Amino acid sequence: MSFLPVYNDIYTAHQTIQKYAHRTPVLTSTSINKIVGNSLFFKCENFQKVGAFKFRGACNAVFSLSEEDAKKGVATHSSGNHAAALALAAKMRGIAAHIVMPRTSPEIKKKAVAGYGAHITFCEPTLEARESTLAKVVEETRATEIHPYNNFHVIAGQGTAAKELIEGKRKFDIIIAPVGGGGLLSGTAISTKKLLPECKVIAAEPAGADDAFRSFRAGKLIPSVNPKTIADGLLTSLGERNFAIISEKVDDIVTVSEEKIVEAMRLIWERMKIIIEPSSAVPLAAILENKINVQNKKVGIILSGGNLDLGKLPF
Amino acid sequence: MSFLPVYNDIYTAHQTIQKYAHRTPVLTSTSINKIVGNSLFFKCENFQKVGAFKFRGACNAVFSLSEEDAKKGVATHSSGNHAAALALAAKMRGIAAHIVMPRTSPEIKKKAVAGYGAHITFCEPTLEARESTLAKVVEETRATEIHPYNNFHVIAGQGTAAKELIEGKRKFDIIIAPVGGGGLLSGTAISTKKLLPECKVIAAEPAGADDAFRSFRAGKLIPSVNPKTIADGLLTSLGERNFAIISEKVDDIVTVSEEKIVEAMRLIWERMKIIIEPSSAVPLAAILENKINVQNKKVGIILSGGNLDLGKLPF
Repeated sequence: MSFLPVYNDIYTAHQTIQKYAHRTPVLTSTSINKIVGNSLFFKCENFQKVGAFKFRGACNAVFSLSEEDAKKGVATHSSGNHAAALALAAKMRGIAAHIVMPRTSPEIKKKAVAGYGAHITFCEPTLEARESTLAKVVEETRATEIHPYNNFHVIAGQGTAAKELIEGKRKFDIIIAPVGGGGLLSGTAISTKKLLPECKVIAAEPAGADDAFRSFRAGKLIPSVNPKTIADGLLTSLGERNFAIISEKVDDIVTVSEEKIVEAMRLIWERMKIIIEPSSAVPLAAILENKINVQNKKVGIILSGGNLDLGKLPF
Repeated sequence: MSFLPVYNDIYTAHQTIQKYAHRTPVLTSTSINKIVGNSLFFKCENFQKVGAFKFRGACNAVFSLSEEDAKKGVATHSSGNHAAALALAAKMRGIAAHIVMPRTSPEIKKKAVAGYGAHITFCEPTLEARESTLAKVVEETRATEIHPYNNFHVIAGQGTAAKELIEGKRKFDIIIAPVGGGGLLSGTAISTKKLLPECKVIAAEPAGADDAFRSFRAGKLIPSVNPKTIADGLLTSLGERNFAIISEKVDDIVTVSEEKIVEAMRLIWERMKIIIEPSSAVPLAAILENKINVQNKKVGIILSGGNLDLGKLPF
């Protein structure tokens, strides 16, 4: 297996996961189209299993393991959606999932992971604590570590969302995805550039966690230092594999303000009557903030997930 | 035209409105089914135009007017979804809508009605003020009054939601709808008893606004006095036409607590990632509160709408 996945790996991933993952709907909103003067098509991964696209990658990783490796289980550290996704995928294959979670993770995410029967180890909310705790867990269990985004099979799995979006036979001019660790964005870029070579792939990132934006412009990985954004799914820094794919295939990365993220999220809640988490609102925020020229364009947007603490809403 | 609509009127209404109204999706939730130990099918009228089933009835009423009557426009008093629905339907036919709204109506609903180009007259939030203000407006404009629920064409229009739900070819054992004025419930009962005579029709009502429950048991209309519930769409008292149909065709009416309404609403938000208003949560609340025996039953639930003030959530 080569270092970086190509479209064929996404094709294979799609066959692997289709028994387990939802083929999520693509929704449109007349009133949001009126506001932006455009045609937006939203791929609703908030309706995916565990409420986020993360299930695609985790599921592909779990079901790509050999029988022998699978028996030892899987492990990861994650503050959120990847943890729940890996826990559910492992449960579906009937193997153990060992999840290291920062003790500050949102209650809704802790509950979800526990609900899928995973073994949870809580740690301090620092990258160092997460990594050292995970190392211990892996040493004890010999489970296979499944990184949330810097992982071949995870990237291939995440690319299936854009594949489905494009297979809806719409000739998109632009596809926009949010970027955190880069798993969704790198998979989206591989699918799009294969299936619609003329279509631009643009990433939207919170200005308060803009390592992808800076790395993309500098041509080298520049990790985040103290990132801060309401879009908690996008706090992580780009992975190496993800950056390699993004550098080659993504057309542009733009940043957006916190204010516009909240505005975009509320707009989608009010007009589309669907619940998305702040990370999912970042692409629409970029359009509302005029960071992407969408004049007379057909635009696909990946709504990454719908998990958030309803007791702590920003409005 | 007879006093009360029959199934044939719902059939005709469906043909009238299908160019204008959405055929809303029917969603299921594995995790909610697990909690209730059952199969629930949710007819998502929160995704209907104007965000509520009310558009069906208003649309049917507007497009059933003669050319001559239509020219003079339509009028109503409504604190919410019916106002927006009538305003949009009138706009689609290119006629005037005159809406009397209590000045205390939620901002989101005032904005929606204004956005559809209706002429709004604000009044005090009492039934007396609403009726006398409307009478004045009708006298001045000669517009046709379209009552929110006690209206032949409105009832026929509301019945199309259950028609679509049943046409999904599911043999339901029970269909549950919330009840306020009784437009949705009476239309639902007519459709269900024609298309699935064996299926029970049960209404769920907030205990704090239980005039339908009391009227149903007493066999005569007993209007609400000072009803109080978070389910603001259900504060109204049953209409005469609605009560006549409900008395004949509905199998039971049950009441639920405010606490369970909020719990059911949050459950649907969290698990299904869709936004519903409190009124829509009343049927699931009845199941959670064990007011309806759903053991081994296939249950259809009408989610009536998704309009609420996101700045004033109960959690």
